[in-house]
Amino acid sequence: MMKKRGILFIISAPSGSGKTTLCARLVESVDSLYRSISMTTRAPRPGEKDGMDYIFIEKPEFIKRQKKNEFLEWAKFFGEYYGTPKKHILHMLKRGSDVLLSIDVQGAMKIKRLKLDAVYMFILPPSIAMLKERLINRSTDSKEAICERLNIAKKEILCSQKYDYVIINNRLESALDNLRAIIIAERCKTGRS
Amino acid sequence: MMKKRGILFIISAPSGSGKTTLCARLVESVDSLYRSISMTTRAPRPGEKDGMDYIFIEKPEFIKRQKKNEFLEWAKFFGEYYGTPKKHILHMLKRGSDVLLSIDVQGAMKIKRLKLDAVYMFILPPSIAMLKERLINRSTDSKEAICERLNIAKKEILCSQKYDYVIINNRLESALDNLRAIIIAERCKTGRS
Repeated sequence: MMKKRGILFIISAPSGSGKTTLCARLVESVDSLYRSISMTTRAPRPGEKDGMDYIFIEKPEFIKRQKKNEFLEWAKFFGEYYGTPKKHILHMLKRGSDVLLSIDVQGAMKIKRLKLDAVYMFILPPSIAMLKERLINRSTDSKEAICERLNIAKKEILCSQKYDYVIINNRLESALDNLRAIIIAERCKTGRS
Repeated sequence: MMKKRGILFIISAPSGSGKTTLCARLVESVDSLYRSISMTTRAPRPGEKDGMDYIFIEKPEFIKRQKKNEFLEWAKFFGEYYGTPKKHILHMLKRGSDVLLSIDVQGAMKIKRLKLDAVYMFILPPSIAMLKERLINRSTDSKEAICERLNIAKKEILCSQKYDYVIINNRLESALDNLRAIIIAERCKTGRS
């Protein structure tokens, strides 16, 4: 039997949708699914670990890598750079491992243009009010930043139709169950087995 | 929010693949999934219950219904008629319920031509040897009938590529988990939510 290529699972969600927790739980609960860790120049938030949440690097280092075409996609938000390292992902997919990539909507749309065999999943917060509450409770952002994040979130939610799947995160366990189901189902797709 | 239509899940498998058990367990373990019960003129096998495994009817009754166009599809095997009652399925889908229909490959291909919003799943036995063993152990068929069923099975397996999903039934629990995942995932598909 021919060794099959891995599937790239792309997950997007407005900030405050519980994406980080969901992704961490998801790779724990599904076999042979590996997270791709993005690189960023922004400072770690309290509790974030280098190499776990992000690979934190300095700006000149990021720009050097970007010039060497080392990112599948990259972007600048609030003056900081974010990028998806290319080599590791392509290597994992080639050896048949599935990769989970948590990325913002613009990044996901850039990757869509690359026409990789990828599955696009969007996490919806139960409501905008709930999203606002979560952002305030996280209390890592200023009032202005929260307002800006909410505006971005509203725009991002409109893009959810461009994804293959939409999962509403009203209960963590149920959202996790849905994500897990999508990964298992995609592995059973005829073209892939 | 607009009430969404139900999804028709079609499941096929060579005889002896464990399809009956899987379908029964599946509707038990997934919310809001209802089985469509087929009609047949063949005699019940030991343990089969009218209205549960099949609706058992007489040949003249079947032919009357077939002439009144009451079947989504129908077929004749080994001299007996099998049909899928149309009205109940369409009613369930319209009210937003998902329907599970267990049907042979030819029947599934006939339904495919109707262009309903349906998801096609194929259960593969782990091997032809295992399938033969299961058919012998079931001991409801003669040696010749088993041989004929195996030949049909081999042809049906070639058709599995026309299905959306293929599930290998080497362990019941794992096959069940895959089927359950497909149903949950399909419900999260963007076009549907």
